[in-house]
Amino acid sequence: MTKEVIIVGGGFAGLKAAKVLGNKEGIQVTLIDKANHHLFQPLLYQVATAGLSQSDIAMPIRSILSEFQNIKVLQGEVTGVDFDGRAVTTDFGTLTYDHLILACGVRHCYFGKEAWEPHAPGLKTLEQALEIRRRILSAFEVAERAEDETVRRRALTFVVVGGGPTGVELAGAIGEMTRYTLGRDFRNIDPKLTRIILVEAGDRILGSFPKKQSSRATRDLENLGVQVWTKSPVSEIGETAIEVGSEKIETMTVLWAAGITATDLNQGLGVETGVQGRLVVDACLNIPGRNDVFVAGDQAAFTDPSGKILPCLSPVAIQQGQCIAENILRDQAGESREPFDYVDKGQMATIGRSRAIVDFGFFRLQGFIAWLTWLLVHIYFISGFNNRLSIFLKWCLSYLTNKKGARIISGATWRFFDTLPACEPCDAPTAPPTPEPFKKAE
Amino acid sequence: MTKEVIIVGGGFAGLKAAKVLGNKEGIQVTLIDKANHHLFQPLLYQVATAGLSQSDIAMPIRSILSEFQNIKVLQGEVTGVDFDGRAVTTDFGTLTYDHLILACGVRHCYFGKEAWEPHAPGLKTLEQALEIRRRILSAFEVAERAEDETVRRRALTFVVVGGGPTGVELAGAIGEMTRYTLGRDFRNIDPKLTRIILVEAGDRILGSFPKKQSSRATRDLENLGVQVWTKSPVSEIGETAIEVGSEKIETMTVLWAAGITATDLNQGLGVETGVQGRLVVDACLNIPGRNDVFVAGDQAAFTDPSGKILPCLSPVAIQQGQCIAENILRDQAGESREPFDYVDKGQMATIGRSRAIVDFGFFRLQGFIAWLTWLLVHIYFISGFNNRLSIFLKWCLSYLTNKKGARIISGATWRFFDTLPACEPCDAPTAPPTPEPFKKAE
Repeated sequence: MTKEVIIVGGGFAGLKAAKVLGNKEGIQVTLIDKANHHLFQPLLYQVATAGLSQSDIAMPIRSILSEFQNIKVLQGEVTGVDFDGRAVTTDFGTLTYDHLILACGVRHCYFGKEAWEPHAPGLKTLEQALEIRRRILSAFEVAERAEDETVRRRALTFVVVGGGPTGVELAGAIGEMTRYTLGRDFRNIDPKLTRIILVEAGDRILGSFPKKQSSRATRDLENLGVQVWTKSPVSEIGETAIEVGSEKIETMTVLWAAGITATDLNQGLGVETGVQGRLVVDACLNIPGRNDVFVAGDQAAFTDPSGKILPCLSPVAIQQGQCIAENILRDQAGESREPFDYVDKGQMATIGRSRAIVDFGFFRLQGFIAWLTWLLVHIYFISGFNNRLSIFLKWCLSYLTNKKGARIISGATWRFFDTLPACEPCDAPTAPPTPEPFKKAE
Repeated sequence: MTKEVIIVGGGFAGLKAAKVLGNKEGIQVTLIDKANHHLFQPLLYQVATAGLSQSDIAMPIRSILSEFQNIKVLQGEVTGVDFDGRAVTTDFGTLTYDHLILACGVRHCYFGKEAWEPHAPGLKTLEQALEIRRRILSAFEVAERAEDETVRRRALTFVVVGGGPTGVELAGAIGEMTRYTLGRDFRNIDPKLTRIILVEAGDRILGSFPKKQSSRATRDLENLGVQVWTKSPVSEIGETAIEVGSEKIETMTVLWAAGITATDLNQGLGVETGVQGRLVVDACLNIPGRNDVFVAGDQAAFTDPSGKILPCLSPVAIQQGQCIAENILRDQAGESREPFDYVDKGQMATIGRSRAIVDFGFFRLQGFIAWLTWLLVHIYFISGFNNRLSIFLKWCLSYLTNKKGARIISGATWRFFDTLPACEPCDAPTAPPTPEPFKKAE
């Protein structure tokens, strides 16, 4: 008889699982996601730095899965799971399942310093990307307007916390932007005077890559005007400054790419959590003792045979989503399940517009060749999600040309920056301004 | 000696004036706009109905004008003008001018019923367009989730108030969207069951067009499933219903395209205002008695020789911006100014994806031919502002294909809809939700 499969999360893992189960005999799938869109996370930093617009990397989950008649997509938030009752509670009601696939991903965290959040937004959602874009572009507007040198210098100082791929890509893109894109557009300021500081607590950036490659990445960043500070733990982040060790840097724009943690859902589940609060899973990606509950992607802490916990990468998520779906189909066919076997596809990070590092394990690339590889891989994968020619062309063009296509500040955040140096800007994101016409209604 | 020209507003009028004055001897231009972008208003309804994404019709004013070394672009809000002191006060300081060009446009108004605003957003800014998109797409998500028939019917009922071009284009695009785009993506609902009602107080829609054409437009709308209610003044708009005359329609989504009024700036100026609070100007577009102050575009109420006040159309704005700039140059050259002479380029309105009406005065078009004309005219004009091939291609493709390119709900408005039927959705826009990570900080 028909099995009800509930998938929580429309990321790489959830979407892959859904596609494998799509139009399969005796399977009814319900995919629940907080957003109505799948996000192509690897390029989110491009939206944050105005290289791409949101619809380029976000696709409605419904249309991605519309060909599968046995899949229902619901937009909503899962608030809890009753494992014994085989039911998930959502903000729009309760749904029962035969198989549950949890793929909620992770969010960034501040290691207990949650007070830093409004001053240093992270980069996980589309809204955050647009908020970061607002801050970066608005900072230049403030600098262009500023009479006071202090305000201008502060506006032109950007600090990125965290030397992982996201931090490196953000810092590189900001460097690229200030060097080539914004230069000719300003009269009062020279965007090249911008200070971009990448702060990393560890002794090198891109710690997951080989030493040689991370030093190459450091050089590439420095060529873009990015100062790389390693062994530099952040001690405080305020509204107009960040303290790194004993040093204090005046800045309006701090971006957070330092840490991730599981979504709040995990705490309430009453099951074992591992590193970063992610859910511990067994060989078949089940919550131990719960053969009907699977966890995939960033939300899962899977320990491979070598004892290493798999990182939060899209290849891991995709492969896990596939493995889970196939095991559910094996159940249907009365076959026995197969354990998850991760095939390492390597890792890559891009630095600015024409540099990258690629680590395939068996061979490594850096510089322009690596960047081309990076480009091709991402074009290939994004077109897999969204094959509309227009997007594809726009993506290539707006990326290959120096002109940033999406330098639009929406949400009128500038209002907040105009009260400088009183420094409301840092508070702005905690309460987005009301669009013009609705003001009266407040 | 060098004349300081301040242009307030980066719309069609302000931008045209700036371009004419660009790189001209003895002229220093400062353009001030609340937003950092110029908005291609004629296609704003496409963003609201998810046909285009915001960066397709919004271009950073700085980059449009970057080639002109004598033009400085500042993002900020003008709060008042001291005509005698020849100074404008802004939220970032005071600037003095030799010539002032006011081109702030208009905003929509509710004829004293400002309380309707949160329940019936208008369509003038990018933020409003995205808010309207959120409401339309979220309504379908609610319908897909809804157990209760009442909630579902309410979610699938869309009311557009105002039978002018904007209202017609909105209603037509929603009809198009529900008929062809969303159909295959939903399981629980048939988007074709959507009710779209265009409400007009007057005795026909598109009153500025010939009778024959507006009845043709009515037929075209009806073919898209849009019910056209004329002679139907709105008596009340609430959170979950709208009252038209004595009838009451349950709906979650009311869109306002009924009226416009001048921006708040005009009240404070202490000069004569005319229809819709727009500033009365003389033959040379000056505020009477103020030869150094010009008004252009929607903000100006210019009476042509025939005694007719020119409508709020982009051709009027563009021609006025040009006339003003040329008169300023004539001043420089010691020549006498020339009065504004409007060349009527006619008007057009599009209905759905393949119908339109075009009225060139001397000849008229409707149906598909009119739509092609409409398409070509708009492609021509938008490419004038933004000639990046990628945008151009995307624009054509996403418009010509049935797939809506930008069906992304950002800003997590869905949260609000999930409390239905308590009906917070209508309040959502008055207080946009805080992006995930910032929640804690609140």
